[in-house]
Amino acid sequence: MIDKTAVQGENITIGSYVVIEKNVLIGNNVEIGNHVTIKEGTIISDNVVISDFSLLGKAPSSNNKMARKPIMDLDPLYIGENVKVGSHCCLYKGSTIHPGVLVADMASIREHVTVGANSIIGKNVMVENNTTIGDNVTIQTASYVTAHMLIEDEVFIGPCMSSSNDKYMASRTKELQGPILKKGAKIGNNASLLPGIVVGEKAIVGAGSVITKDVPASEVVLGNPGRKSKS
Amino acid sequence: MIDKTAVQGENITIGSYVVIEKNVLIGNNVEIGNHVTIKEGTIISDNVVISDFSLLGKAPSSNNKMARKPIMDLDPLYIGENVKVGSHCCLYKGSTIHPGVLVADMASIREHVTVGANSIIGKNVMVENNTTIGDNVTIQTASYVTAHMLIEDEVFIGPCMSSSNDKYMASRTKELQGPILKKGAKIGNNASLLPGIVVGEKAIVGAGSVITKDVPASEVVLGNPGRKSKS
Amino acid sequence: MIDKTAVQGENITIGSYVVIEKNVLIGNNVEIGNHVTIKEGTIISDNVVISDFSLLGKAPSSNNKMARKPIMDLDPLYIGENVKVGSHCCLYKGSTIHPGVLVADMASIREHVTVGANSIIGKNVMVENNTTIGDNVTIQTASYVTAHMLIEDEVFIGPCMSSSNDKYMASRTKELQGPILKKGAKIGNNASLLPGIVVGEKAIVGAGSVITKDVPASEVVLGNPGRKSKS
Repeated sequence: MIDKTAVQGENITIGSYVVIEKNVLIGNNVEIGNHVTIKEGTIISDNVVISDFSLLGKAPSSNNKMARKPIMDLDPLYIGENVKVGSHCCLYKGSTIHPGVLVADMASIREHVTVGANSIIGKNVMVENNTTIGDNVTIQTASYVTAHMLIEDEVFIGPCMSSSNDKYMASRTKELQGPILKKGAKIGNNASLLPGIVVGEKAIVGAGSVITKDVPASEVVLGNPGRKSKS
Repeated sequence: MIDKTAVQGENITIGSYVVIEKNVLIGNNVEIGNHVTIKEGTIISDNVVISDFSLLGKAPSSNNKMARKPIMDLDPLYIGENVKVGSHCCLYKGSTIHPGVLVADMASIREHVTVGANSIIGKNVMVENNTTIGDNVTIQTASYVTAHMLIEDEVFIGPCMSSSNDKYMASRTKELQGPILKKGAKIGNNASLLPGIVVGEKAIVGAGSVITKDVPASEVVLGNPGRKSKS
Repeated sequence: MIDKTAVQGENITIGSYVVIEKNVLIGNNVEIGNHVTIKEGTIISDNVVISDFSLLGKAPSSNNKMARKPIMDLDPLYIGENVKVGSHCCLYKGSTIHPGVLVADMASIREHVTVGANSIIGKNVMVENNTTIGDNVTIQTASYVTAHMLIEDEVFIGPCMSSSNDKYMASRTKELQGPILKKGAKIGNNASLLPGIVVGEKAIVGAGSVITKDVPASEVVLGNPGRKSKS
């Protein structure tokens, strides 16, 4: 089920039961697994690997209850050179994955997201819309990156981090603002980051901490609520 | 692979590599993506959208270790009008999804679950068996809804909420009881809710809190263990 | 798309749109759902059930940023008798799933993992590489089992447990060591376990606790940081 208008480079491998829609662009030396769907217009650069059961270029969806409807007029999904996408992933239209990124199995990336070069989006990580992730960032398994979050270069996020962006929980009138993680910050596993907090450059957030206030650069914070570590 | 006994309405779109088993009922104006499996007897109402790689109508499974075996004699899965089901979802037999619900990508809904009208089951949300979810409820990404939990109308649950139902952790003799969230309660991201606790009407549970006792109506609780907020 | 060199036993059921690669061994009375991919050399014993959209025998992947590259020379995935694998799962090469195990929907098991007989790997549980899980272990939905972790027999892990293995968060020079959970330990939902901590035999970790130190056998610990319970 490969549309005739899908333009393919040289030395491409395509598995079984694959759907490639109209006007998909595929570069050279691309490997596509089995049971993959690539939606209309998606751009896949050279040397990309897409594993089995992944969906590329999905459009957003909503229901009547949703106060903030997603924007539907989106650019195609762009996947840079040497990117690897794991199995059972779902990547939306309107996002850009820069070269060398690893998107691990079962990860999701919504629309209007940028992932910087060589970053790692871990297994089962959910990245919401309108989020910017810098270069050389690591986000480990099962972490949750809320919408309107900013993650600068070289940030390290352990597994199961949780973030939020809506201080008033569904007030519907306030602007959403996710956490801002400055360059080289490190976040321990299962930390909870509240809306709009800033974690400074090279600051460290301990595992299981609940961060309710800004964390100064290079500071180490721990606990619930997070406080400066004494040691 | 569409069984001849599957009854289809008008104006239905079905993608590639789709399996529709015996006696599935499909209403009018239904859209079914690629790589979808719909199990025997599933009922899909008008104007429903099913995205790629989703599985509808799965039967429960168990092994010898499991103390509480699932009930296998279940009604078909019922999906109401205007429901949208995301990609890579798994919805079991014996559950009812009321009209206007959005089930986002990678969500799972087990057997004997009711989801009320216009509610949102977020991405990668896991809803266990024998749980009742009211109308206009929002459950955000990656939250965990344990078995035998009750979520009333207009409850808001932020991302990564965790709940449990077994105070004695695998004692095998006690009854399971999940948390009870009363009308309009709001739960912050990554909160932990213990078995059987009641969160009162319009009460607010802070992000990262661990709720070990009942929360009175309209009260705000924070911390580990959760205590009444002073502010 | 079933390779001619795949050796099949008697009384095997295979769904639609299934890919079985070279030299896969399939025992008697095996059921394979729709949309399944089984990679080269995978060994599936008698009476195994594989549900829809699952991927068996995946090889590891990496990018340039990754300090610790996965080992690529791996034995085939081995699945013992009477194992059940849910839908949308991803099991890697180089792992051994002993008889009677239940791997629930949307679970992931990386390479160099052993899962002991009759254990339960819950829905959406992520098990990282080089981890050993004993017999009769229960790991409930959405828990995260880090790499280089040891879980002894009869351990019970509630939902949403988070573990880590890198005290220095991406220092790249230290050895990784995940938590060690001794026989019969019980871990409450959404607990955070720090690198290398030992939870003693029959010890109990409360829900939402953050465990930063070893827990003696039979002790009950609660809170952030976890302390001995007074009751």
